[in-house]
Amino acid sequence: MKLTGACIFGQSGGPTSVINSSAYGVIRAALDAPEITKVYCAANGVKGILEDRLYDMGVESADELALLQHTPSSIFGSCRYKLKDFTVDDTDYKRILEIFKKYDVRYFFYNGGNDSMDTCDKVSRYMESVGYECCIIGVPKTIDNDLYGIDHCPGFASAARFISTSVAEIYLDAHVYDTGMVTIIEAMGRNAGWLTASAALARHAGTPVDLIYMPERPFDVKECMDAIEKIYAQKKSCLVVVSEGIMDKDGKFIAEYASDAASATDSFGHKQMGGVASYLAAEAKARIGCKTRGIELSLLQRCAAHCASKVDIDEAVMLGKKAVETAVSGITGKMVAIVRKEGTTEYIPEIKLFPLTSVANAEHKFPEEWILDDVHGISEEFDAYALPLIDGDIDYPREKGLPRFARLKLELVK
Amino acid sequence: MKLTGACIFGQSGGPTSVINSSAYGVIRAALDAPEITKVYCAANGVKGILEDRLYDMGVESADELALLQHTPSSIFGSCRYKLKDFTVDDTDYKRILEIFKKYDVRYFFYNGGNDSMDTCDKVSRYMESVGYECCIIGVPKTIDNDLYGIDHCPGFASAARFISTSVAEIYLDAHVYDTGMVTIIEAMGRNAGWLTASAALARHAGTPVDLIYMPERPFDVKECMDAIEKIYAQKKSCLVVVSEGIMDKDGKFIAEYASDAASATDSFGHKQMGGVASYLAAEAKARIGCKTRGIELSLLQRCAAHCASKVDIDEAVMLGKKAVETAVSGITGKMVAIVRKEGTTEYIPEIKLFPLTSVANAEHKFPEEWILDDVHGISEEFDAYALPLIDGDIDYPREKGLPRFARLKLELVK
Repeated sequence: MKLTGACIFGQSGGPTSVINSSAYGVIRAALDAPEITKVYCAANGVKGILEDRLYDMGVESADELALLQHTPSSIFGSCRYKLKDFTVDDTDYKRILEIFKKYDVRYFFYNGGNDSMDTCDKVSRYMESVGYECCIIGVPKTIDNDLYGIDHCPGFASAARFISTSVAEIYLDAHVYDTGMVTIIEAMGRNAGWLTASAALARHAGTPVDLIYMPERPFDVKECMDAIEKIYAQKKSCLVVVSEGIMDKDGKFIAEYASDAASATDSFGHKQMGGVASYLAAEAKARIGCKTRGIELSLLQRCAAHCASKVDIDEAVMLGKKAVETAVSGITGKMVAIVRKEGTTEYIPEIKLFPLTSVANAEHKFPEEWILDDVHGISEEFDAYALPLIDGDIDYPREKGLPRFARLKLELVK
Repeated sequence: MKLTGACIFGQSGGPTSVINSSAYGVIRAALDAPEITKVYCAANGVKGILEDRLYDMGVESADELALLQHTPSSIFGSCRYKLKDFTVDDTDYKRILEIFKKYDVRYFFYNGGNDSMDTCDKVSRYMESVGYECCIIGVPKTIDNDLYGIDHCPGFASAARFISTSVAEIYLDAHVYDTGMVTIIEAMGRNAGWLTASAALARHAGTPVDLIYMPERPFDVKECMDAIEKIYAQKKSCLVVVSEGIMDKDGKFIAEYASDAASATDSFGHKQMGGVASYLAAEAKARIGCKTRGIELSLLQRCAAHCASKVDIDEAVMLGKKAVETAVSGITGKMVAIVRKEGTTEYIPEIKLFPLTSVANAEHKFPEEWILDDVHGISEEFDAYALPLIDGDIDYPREKGLPRFARLKLELVK
C-alpha cells in the first residue's frame, strides 16, 4: 500500500545518548517525504497518543532539529507503558485509532527496546485487524544491546565507549598510590552483559580490568572475594567490573542483598537495580582491610553524549531515515536494524528489516563462548565485535564549554 | 644563584585530569634547559626520594612525553606523606639531602595541593638552613581549587567541566518520564564548594539545577527535604547537587550519618551502603514516596581526561614550564600560579610567583557573597569566574576509539 497522511513518532523505554539521533533521522526524513503531510511527535511515547499530546515538528527550525544528533535522552519524553493484549482489552487501542483518525495518521514510528517493539507490534496487528491502513515501523534503541536478531542496537556503542573510556581513566586513578586499593565498578545491563563486557575494551588503552562479573553467570560473593584477595596479594590493587544484574545460584539479585530498594518494581515487573558496587566494596574492605571504592556508573553511561560514538550517532540517524523510507514504500510491521556484512573482517554495517513479532520480547544474548570462566574475563572475539562500534571522532557542539543541546519549541497541537 | 645539576620532579596528593600536563611542562622544559643535566621523576612523590626510586626521563621518547598532556592521574605515582618539622625530627630531611647529593640534584619541583606545598616549603627551608644550594619551586594542582592566594588551580577547570557537562546530561535523563523523580548528585570538595558550585554552570546549557548545597553552609536534612518536596510538588522533579563535605550545625558530616545508616543492618542482616547522595536519595524516597536516584560522581570527576578543559591543560603545561624557567633563573622557595589580569572582563591569565610559605596549609575559600542562601543557589558572578576556565576544544588522542595514554618506560635509576 502507498499512503498519504500524517505521521507520529514516539520514544519509549530508558533513554540513550543517541535516541534523539534516531528521532532526528525520522523527523528529517518525514518532513522531506512528499507522502507525509504532517510530522507529529508524541509526548511520553504511547502515553502522549492516548492523552492527545502531540508536538508539531513543522514549527521547529532545521538547525535545532539537527542538534538532536548530539542531545542525549528522549527529548519528547518517554514512558514505560505496557499495552494489554487487544483481544482481551482493546480500550487503549480504540483510543489510539481515534487519535490516528483525528490527525489522519498513516505512519507510526516507535523508537525503543524490547518492550517498545512489543507495543509497536501490538498496535500494528490491531490496526491490521480493524482494517485501518497505516504503515508502522519500529526503530531499535537500548544501551543493553539485547534486542533479538540484530548485530547491535543504537545506544549500546556510545554507552560502551563511555564505560571503556571511564574504566581506562579510573584504572590510572586507582593505581596512583602504592598503599593499595580495590576498586569495584558497576555497569548497567539487567540480563545481558554487553555493557559489563565493554569494560574489557580498556585493555586496548593499556589499562586492563582484573575481574569481570557478567549477569550470565551465577555470582558467589565468597568466590569473588577469594579472587579479589588473590589478585590483591600479588598486585596490591584489584580493579573489578560487575553487572548490576548479577545474581546468586538461587536466582537472587546481589542488588537485593545490597539494598531493600531493589524490592520496588516498575510497571513491567522489572526490579530496580543498584548498589552492588558499594556492597561488594564494603565486603572487600571487611575481608582484606584495604582501601576500597565502589563506583556506580549510573545514568552517566546512558546519557554521556559528550563521549558518544560517531559510528553510533550516524547509525542511529540512518535507521531513523530508513524507517521513514521503508514506511513510505508501503512496508509495515517491521523493525529496521543494523546487521554486519558477513564474509569480511572489516566492519561494514547493512540495514535489514525484521518482523516486529520476531523481536518483541525476545533477547539478544551475550555469546556464551565469549565469557572466559577461568579468568573471569571476556574473550577477544568480543573486542573484534565491539571496537569498530565505539570508534570515530566526535566534536559535539558547545557554547561556553558546555554542550549546546537542541532547543525545540515543543508546541502541543491544540 | 645560578646552578647546574640534576632535577627531581614529584607528584603528590590526589590526582587530577591534568597533573600529568604539568609534569609534561616541567619535564620538557627541564630536558631542554642547559643548566639541567639530568631529569628524574620520583616514584610516589617524596616517598620515592626517601626510598631512592627515581625514573630517568632521558630514556623516554618525546612523543610519549607529549601524550602526558592527555593522560589523567599521576603517572609517576603519588603519596600522602607529611614531613615532620625538621627542627623536631630531621631524619627524612637528612635522607633527602643524601639523595640530592648522590644525584647532584640542584633543582626540585613538586606538584600538588596544600599539603604538598607544605612539603615543598619545608624541604626548601631545610636546604637553605643547611646551606645546600638548590632551587625549589612548587607547581599547584587540586580539583578542590582551594590553594591560597591564586585565581584557580590546574585540575579544577577540567573537573568543573566534567561536572557541569555531566549534570547537564543527567538533567535531560532525569526529566524523561512524566512519573516524577528526585535526583541527587554528589560532588567532591570536602571543605570548599568550588566543585559543587560548578554544577550551577549547567544552566548555560538550559539545564538548571534546582538546589545546590555547599559545604560552606550548615546542612539540615529536614530543611533539605522540605525544599525538595516543595519543588517536587510544583515540577514533579527535583535535581539537587550536594558537596561530599556538607555537615550539620554541630559540625557532624552528613557522610557520617550515611555511614551510621550503613552500619545498621537490614532485615536480611546485611549492611546498607552508600554515600551522601544515596543517603539523601533514600531520605527523599521515604519522605515523598517518589522514584529517587543518588549519583556519586566519584573518581570520574578528577580523572575524566576525555572531557578535560583545553584552557586547563594549556595552563597546567605552562605552569610546569614556568617552574623550570623560574628555577634556572636562580629563584627558589616559590610556587608558580595563575592570576587573572585585572581591570578587564576578558579572561587573561597571568603567571605570578607566591612564596611557598604563604600558600602552605592556607585555604582559598569560596566567596561567601557568591552563595545565595535564599534559593540554595550560586550567584552569576561565579559563572563569570568559571566559564572562561572550562572552555576550549579538545581532541584527545585515541586509538580504536579508546584514549591513547602516554606509554613511558619508567626505568628506575639503578
